[in-house]
Amino acid sequence: MSTAELVDGTAAAAAREDMTGLMTELVGMYRSITGDGVRETLARVAKDVPVAVHEVPSGTAVLDWTVPPEWNVRDAYVADRTGHRVIDLHASPLHLVGYSVPVRATMTLDELRPHLHTLPEHPEWVPYRTSYYTPGWGFCLSQRHLDAMDDGPYDVLVDTTLEPGFLTYGECVLPGEQPEEVLVSTHVCHPAMANDNLTGIAVATALARLLAGTTHRYTYRLLLLPGTIGSLTWLAGNPEVLPRVRHGVVLTGLGGPGPLVWKRTRHGRRAVDRAAEHVVGQRDGEVRDYSPWGYDERQYNAPGFDLPVGRLTRTPHGEYPEYHTSADDLSFVSADNLVEALAAVLELLDVLEHDAVPVRCGPPGEPQLGRRGLYPGIGGHSAQEQVLALLWAAGCADGEHSLLDVARRAGLPFAAVRRAAVLLAENGLLELRDLA
Amino acid sequence: MSTAELVDGTAAAAAREDMTGLMTELVGMYRSITGDGVRETLARVAKDVPVAVHEVPSGTAVLDWTVPPEWNVRDAYVADRTGHRVIDLHASPLHLVGYSVPVRATMTLDELRPHLHTLPEHPEWVPYRTSYYTPGWGFCLSQRHLDAMDDGPYDVLVDTTLEPGFLTYGECVLPGEQPEEVLVSTHVCHPAMANDNLTGIAVATALARLLAGTTHRYTYRLLLLPGTIGSLTWLAGNPEVLPRVRHGVVLTGLGGPGPLVWKRTRHGRRAVDRAAEHVVGQRDGEVRDYSPWGYDERQYNAPGFDLPVGRLTRTPHGEYPEYHTSADDLSFVSADNLVEALAAVLELLDVLEHDAVPVRCGPPGEPQLGRRGLYPGIGGHSAQEQVLALLWAAGCADGEHSLLDVARRAGLPFAAVRRAAVLLAENGLLELRDLA
Amino acid sequence: MSTAELVDGTAAAAAREDMTGLMTELVGMYRSITGDGVRETLARVAKDVPVAVHEVPSGTAVLDWTVPPEWNVRDAYVADRTGHRVIDLHASPLHLVGYSVPVRATMTLDELRPHLHTLPEHPEWVPYRTSYYTPGWGFCLSQRHLDAMDDGPYDVLVDTTLEPGFLTYGECVLPGEQPEEVLVSTHVCHPAMANDNLTGIAVATALARLLAGTTHRYTYRLLLLPGTIGSLTWLAGNPEVLPRVRHGVVLTGLGGPGPLVWKRTRHGRRAVDRAAEHVVGQRDGEVRDYSPWGYDERQYNAPGFDLPVGRLTRTPHGEYPEYHTSADDLSFVSADNLVEALAAVLELLDVLEHDAVPVRCGPPGEPQLGRRGLYPGIGGHSAQEQVLALLWAAGCADGEHSLLDVARRAGLPFAAVRRAAVLLAENGLLELRDLA
Repeated sequence: MSTAELVDGTAAAAAREDMTGLMTELVGMYRSITGDGVRETLARVAKDVPVAVHEVPSGTAVLDWTVPPEWNVRDAYVADRTGHRVIDLHASPLHLVGYSVPVRATMTLDELRPHLHTLPEHPEWVPYRTSYYTPGWGFCLSQRHLDAMDDGPYDVLVDTTLEPGFLTYGECVLPGEQPEEVLVSTHVCHPAMANDNLTGIAVATALARLLAGTTHRYTYRLLLLPGTIGSLTWLAGNPEVLPRVRHGVVLTGLGGPGPLVWKRTRHGRRAVDRAAEHVVGQRDGEVRDYSPWGYDERQYNAPGFDLPVGRLTRTPHGEYPEYHTSADDLSFVSADNLVEALAAVLELLDVLEHDAVPVRCGPPGEPQLGRRGLYPGIGGHSAQEQVLALLWAAGCADGEHSLLDVARRAGLPFAAVRRAAVLLAENGLLELRDLA
Repeated sequence: MSTAELVDGTAAAAAREDMTGLMTELVGMYRSITGDGVRETLARVAKDVPVAVHEVPSGTAVLDWTVPPEWNVRDAYVADRTGHRVIDLHASPLHLVGYSVPVRATMTLDELRPHLHTLPEHPEWVPYRTSYYTPGWGFCLSQRHLDAMDDGPYDVLVDTTLEPGFLTYGECVLPGEQPEEVLVSTHVCHPAMANDNLTGIAVATALARLLAGTTHRYTYRLLLLPGTIGSLTWLAGNPEVLPRVRHGVVLTGLGGPGPLVWKRTRHGRRAVDRAAEHVVGQRDGEVRDYSPWGYDERQYNAPGFDLPVGRLTRTPHGEYPEYHTSADDLSFVSADNLVEALAAVLELLDVLEHDAVPVRCGPPGEPQLGRRGLYPGIGGHSAQEQVLALLWAAGCADGEHSLLDVARRAGLPFAAVRRAAVLLAENGLLELRDLA
Repeated sequence: MSTAELVDGTAAAAAREDMTGLMTELVGMYRSITGDGVRETLARVAKDVPVAVHEVPSGTAVLDWTVPPEWNVRDAYVADRTGHRVIDLHASPLHLVGYSVPVRATMTLDELRPHLHTLPEHPEWVPYRTSYYTPGWGFCLSQRHLDAMDDGPYDVLVDTTLEPGFLTYGECVLPGEQPEEVLVSTHVCHPAMANDNLTGIAVATALARLLAGTTHRYTYRLLLLPGTIGSLTWLAGNPEVLPRVRHGVVLTGLGGPGPLVWKRTRHGRRAVDRAAEHVVGQRDGEVRDYSPWGYDERQYNAPGFDLPVGRLTRTPHGEYPEYHTSADDLSFVSADNLVEALAAVLELLDVLEHDAVPVRCGPPGEPQLGRRGLYPGIGGHSAQEQVLALLWAAGCADGEHSLLDVARRAGLPFAAVRRAAVLLAENGLLELRDLA
């Protein structure tokens, strides 16, 4: 069965419900790069797909890095003298700067100001800030919120722990017919925000759920990791897996506005790039060159690893104003966009799973499709696509084009070309050989 | 002599007269993929050039196909009860659907309707329809014509024969100094219409007539064939010729509007492609990628043959509304366009015949053209082109550029660069070596 | 030290003064392809940099050419019967056609007309004309000037000598650590005009002066030559040097309007082309393909030499109306443009001198820059460029990218990428290897 057909019809409706449901459950959890929020998140995902949870002790040397102390939050607020919480963690996880050290103090507004972060150009939005590798603390709030605060003094509490513990990540391996792997990676460290990155978690989980119900050539490995240190930790700990990784994709930012965007691998012309360029191009998406910043693709592609891992998003981070603010909430993402992104990933995997080389079996020259009843009987766009796919598949069955090559030349969906090739093969007109 | 010069001056006027005269004589003949109309057509062409006519029996297995029964028409009409022919084959060959089976019946208009074809969006035009490989019958007429018909009943006669006979095609071989061949192919199966394909027949015939009067390196083989089954039949029957085919071009649709359009070979970078891209580019024409539909280029390029045959047209079939209708008549084509197309084909052949590699003979560095009187004395565009051609030919005579390479880099006509190279060779400044 | 930093700050101010001062001193000298004007010019340049002056006798066979007689001018005028000089060489060297033969005659205006050259479309400007290889004589003047002349008769004097002598050119060799050479060539034959080519002389001289004060890998060879015959003479006379020429650039037309324009070598993809395309692209300049006309690049690139010599100009010759007229005077060129051109050449040399291949030393994956304090502390554009340069240099340190490759992918200045790579190397994160 073609993975591209996994989200047709009722499956699409189910996947839509799964993804929006999962996001709704996860949005309130407090995720950072370590801590209980990550564990809760992985526990929830594990209800849908078989996720193994790994715990790596703080202080573990990881390549050029070290696993940081585990961070957990009990409470955090700025309260006025009446005890009223003017800023309250429980209103939004974004209010506390990630990895804030513990604080208990009384401060005037002026003393507090260096620890307060706002977005003056978007006065209603709360920014998202972290301080992972430099000790510090702070609160984030809207500019309007800050403007309404009087001079104080205020009671300030940051009741966090930053102690030896663990870095937690999830891994879901779906064995295929072959040991060669496709890596699907998404980050779980961002709290509260929806497009970045509940959408990545939702699409990756829905994908794993669909793949778990099918047989497939490749072994799929879904990684749910805190950004940077998580992927580095996985890379450092799995040297025996790396040579088996044939293709990979980082999923994030898939529910916001804008067309699909493929960010190429560092190499730029890997099989996954060629496949993704076609799939994304067929959906009027964009293809961009690699750059050494962004999400975990920068680790997978770093010199010394150089894994063929690209990235699929919609409008990339930093290019939409809601990025890393409270405005990136559930209302910012569209279920239609998520379903389309899932369908695009499945199409991409369909190419990776099923690309093959059609080779003519019959006499040279164009086969007579008509006498075999291969021309679709009814008209319309789909019938025309079928005819073109048949002509292209037969017309390039020279052993020098793969089905993806044919689809690219033809400007047709890979699935249409593959269907045509299978039909021609069933009629003895060509055979499908493995890619070299 | 350069073939590019064959249509200069008086030769152009003669070719124009030959082509328009030939089209006028051929337009009334009833051509289909088999039958007497094809024989008449080839007999007329044979007055201008030595065409051998081949007859291949119906039922002959041809690769994946079979030569169909021969079809001939004696009469066809729809007449009212007074005997008045409301639709009459003799008014236009287009009125009868090609390969219609015999019919003699009385039918009301409602019974007749499924067999009547019109073009509602062009109510004055008669469409062109065929039913080669599925038995059936029908009449084509303008929408206005149909609207004027009463409910009937009508006497319907289709007096055709569809019987064992022959597929007929023409072949004109013009031996060259070498056995290597250039294929020039055009289809003869379409009745009545001018751009598709009296223009292809006219240009190919004029070309053969001009080539017959010159010596040339390549052997030229002009094929006048019914579409698809004709070229397949020739391909199947001439396996010993195929390895000698070095270049080829399908000619059709050369008199209608629009710039010249080169459709690349399936391979896309054959010598004929590079030559045609330059020639067509110099005339502000277009170059398009291969697709496995169109005319007989799809057979020559099919896997297993893969001959280097491109296609020259103006606006391709299906992209102008007059295509396959009665509006594609003699008034739709322009003699100027035909002459320009003929000139372009001759330029293309000039490149194929005469491309060579200039190699410096004298000392390194730029030769002193002035002291040899090589700079043209008079000014103007042509003189400037000559100077540039001399500089480019001398300046790229490094053994790594062919004359076509130089012309492409320089953006100059091939003939100008070749003239310059010959002049430099005559002055001992370079020698012209055969292409590797 | 990076050559790119040679014109920062005070050095730029000094170079600006040097260049404008040199042009002011040279503008009145009467340069042609031979003669005392060239000697005076080289003597003046020799005050700034160690120029060796070479004298090659007239009649010397030079490849396909011959060194012409030496031409010198004592006086030239057209005077009316009162002795008043209506046209006077001393008013502008442009008034006399270069290489005019001696004349002493009395002529009416009508007799004189065939020897008078004007620019009717620019009635105030005096054209520049020469007759190097065809004996002749003439005067150039503005159209207004001509219109004011009466019918004469006039006394005409051309007091020139055209006798066996020498072709004179200058050569300044600045030895580097290696014998491999970079050629910098500029022409000295044009009288009076500023953009063509006092600017080339000024930039080349300033460049040599700056390079003389530094150590450098390559040996630099500055050539100050009469156009065409000068470079051919040098090429013919230095066969042992040619194999050592690794890169080269012709400098001319650098002070007029328009962005910087790199004209590629004939080969088109030499190291100097890749470097120049990046440097010029970073300055919003243009890159053009090679053509076998222009300045001495056509000799260096001619078949048999094929040296990797491109050309740097602003708006190329023939594309601005002031070209080869009296309007190309000192007011036409801008000191800012000269300084920018000098900076661009130094950046180009910086790439040629310092390109290297960064190779990761540490563990695979992205290094942790933060804990090493490598992230610049302050914000702003320059800090962002530094961060990006660090990420790119570290992220492409795979042994398959040179620093120039990285700069091109990153769209960053080469110097920024090199600085980042050096910083990473100092931190033990990568090593810089020589280019293969």
